[in-house]
Amino acid sequence: MSSAAGIFVHRLALCESDEVGAGTQIWAFVHVMQGAVIGRDCNIGDHAFIETGARIGDRVTLKNQAMVWDGVEIGDDVFVGPGVSFTNDVFARSRRLPLPAVADRYRAKAGWLVRTCVGNGASLGARCVILPGAHIGAYAMVAAGAVVTREVPAHALVAGMPAKRVGWVCRCGARLVQEQARIWHCRCGEIFEEHAAEGCTSLARSC
Amino acid sequence: MSSAAGIFVHRLALCESDEVGAGTQIWAFVHVMQGAVIGRDCNIGDHAFIETGARIGDRVTLKNQAMVWDGVEIGDDVFVGPGVSFTNDVFARSRRLPLPAVADRYRAKAGWLVRTCVGNGASLGARCVILPGAHIGAYAMVAAGAVVTREVPAHALVAGMPAKRVGWVCRCGARLVQEQARIWHCRCGEIFEEHAAEGCTSLARSC
Amino acid sequence: MSSAAGIFVHRLALCESDEVGAGTQIWAFVHVMQGAVIGRDCNIGDHAFIETGARIGDRVTLKNQAMVWDGVEIGDDVFVGPGVSFTNDVFARSRRLPLPAVADRYRAKAGWLVRTCVGNGASLGARCVILPGAHIGAYAMVAAGAVVTREVPAHALVAGMPAKRVGWVCRCGARLVQEQARIWHCRCGEIFEEHAAEGCTSLARSC
Repeated sequence: MSSAAGIFVHRLALCESDEVGAGTQIWAFVHVMQGAVIGRDCNIGDHAFIETGARIGDRVTLKNQAMVWDGVEIGDDVFVGPGVSFTNDVFARSRRLPLPAVADRYRAKAGWLVRTCVGNGASLGARCVILPGAHIGAYAMVAAGAVVTREVPAHALVAGMPAKRVGWVCRCGARLVQEQARIWHCRCGEIFEEHAAEGCTSLARSC
Repeated sequence: MSSAAGIFVHRLALCESDEVGAGTQIWAFVHVMQGAVIGRDCNIGDHAFIETGARIGDRVTLKNQAMVWDGVEIGDDVFVGPGVSFTNDVFARSRRLPLPAVADRYRAKAGWLVRTCVGNGASLGARCVILPGAHIGAYAMVAAGAVVTREVPAHALVAGMPAKRVGWVCRCGARLVQEQARIWHCRCGEIFEEHAAEGCTSLARSC
Repeated sequence: MSSAAGIFVHRLALCESDEVGAGTQIWAFVHVMQGAVIGRDCNIGDHAFIETGARIGDRVTLKNQAMVWDGVEIGDDVFVGPGVSFTNDVFARSRRLPLPAVADRYRAKAGWLVRTCVGNGASLGARCVILPGAHIGAYAMVAAGAVVTREVPAHALVAGMPAKRVGWVCRCGARLVQEQARIWHCRCGEIFEEHAAEGCTSLARSC
């Protein structure tokens, strides 16, 4: 175990980044590449991988074997379940495939890298996969094994392949119950209001 | 490579438990946490992770990258395929999310930990995910990539997301063939009888 | 980091094979077993595992956590996404399960090992699973999270569980557009012709 500026790095982990916040713990067999940014008070589980160019907020739990690539930005207080995989290339080919169209595509990041954001407080279930550009709204919850192919609204609970919305969840993680038209309640006391605009349904906390 | 009481631990593995049975082999980049219990004559593949509080029986094959968490109990002679992930928290949030409802929930194990059992001789296919409390019956078989969301009866073959029963399998692993109403045969010679009770169908070996 | 004959092996990787081609890079926490064959100019990402008996061609990108088993043969220029798992045993049981039928089955490779081939230039998306014998045609593309249960024709784009064909892709990776009956065009300029025979549809480049 080593410790620099209040960071814990397990003796069998490889942390090459010097942009890790205080209070963060990095466990065995993890590889954090140079230039990856990790906030404060995070917990990075065994065998996780965080690539150069990835950005992770504060108080994030990143469970074992999660893979976070260049172009992925994770907000604060996010739960990334075991084995979650992000992606950043919509139609990947081996970069060394000897074809001019492939060489052109991979010559610059602009040609292939698609960014993905995860909003504050969201949860990504075990072994789910997030396709490039499928942004995850704040406090949304992705069910285990789901394959997320497009944007997920804040507070949505999505499941399946491709992932579809099957409910709403509270900030605390509990499923919301509909009390009357467009009003959703949580057992923790929070109340949310449903809005529909441009064919999309969204949820926001009632003030 | 080290060896204590007939246990093989690869020189690149990390085994912190002193409750591993004789004859068990632990391969490279595996992490077995302190307090995890593993029986005799098991085979634990590369990059697997076994958490404090997990219990694994005798003669279990745990393939590479399988993750076994606190609250998971695996019987004897079980096959856990590559990349299988268990889970133990139904509506996970990052534990450090600054909300009273989240803090309350994670204060004690009783608030979030859901246990899962795997019966003797069962097989879990590659990269399947077992949701919290989705107990797997003895000699059941979960297809590769399946997401198991509820209990699986003994000898059932389940597949899909969510996993549904698509057949029955023998103790030896082969698929059973229906010979007459409620009677199923295996090519290895075993015969099983189907029972229905309380809306559930189950299978038991004929005596 | 070590280097033999132009091979790069990260200091935290374990490469036991002496059949790795020049120009290949093997990154942290990878395990390449003795006897595994890897071609030239490949890139093997962190935490990947390549078993004795596996064969990998030239210029292959094998992303992190991919698992390649005995019996799997990967062509040249293939992209194997993060967390992809192959399989080689159709109805796996723990090998030490004390039943004569299981002992018989695992006594020799002929009793259980099913081979799988991946054609040149194919791409396998993140966390997809390839079932035993589900050969992947040249330049085919498997979507992220898909579970491939049977053969995939050359240039097919398949998705879902079980994976089904949802389109065609070019050698360069882009999706093909149908210009007229049986003729498909790529934006990179290539033209393909569709053929149907024995109930199967396939695609080939127009000369």
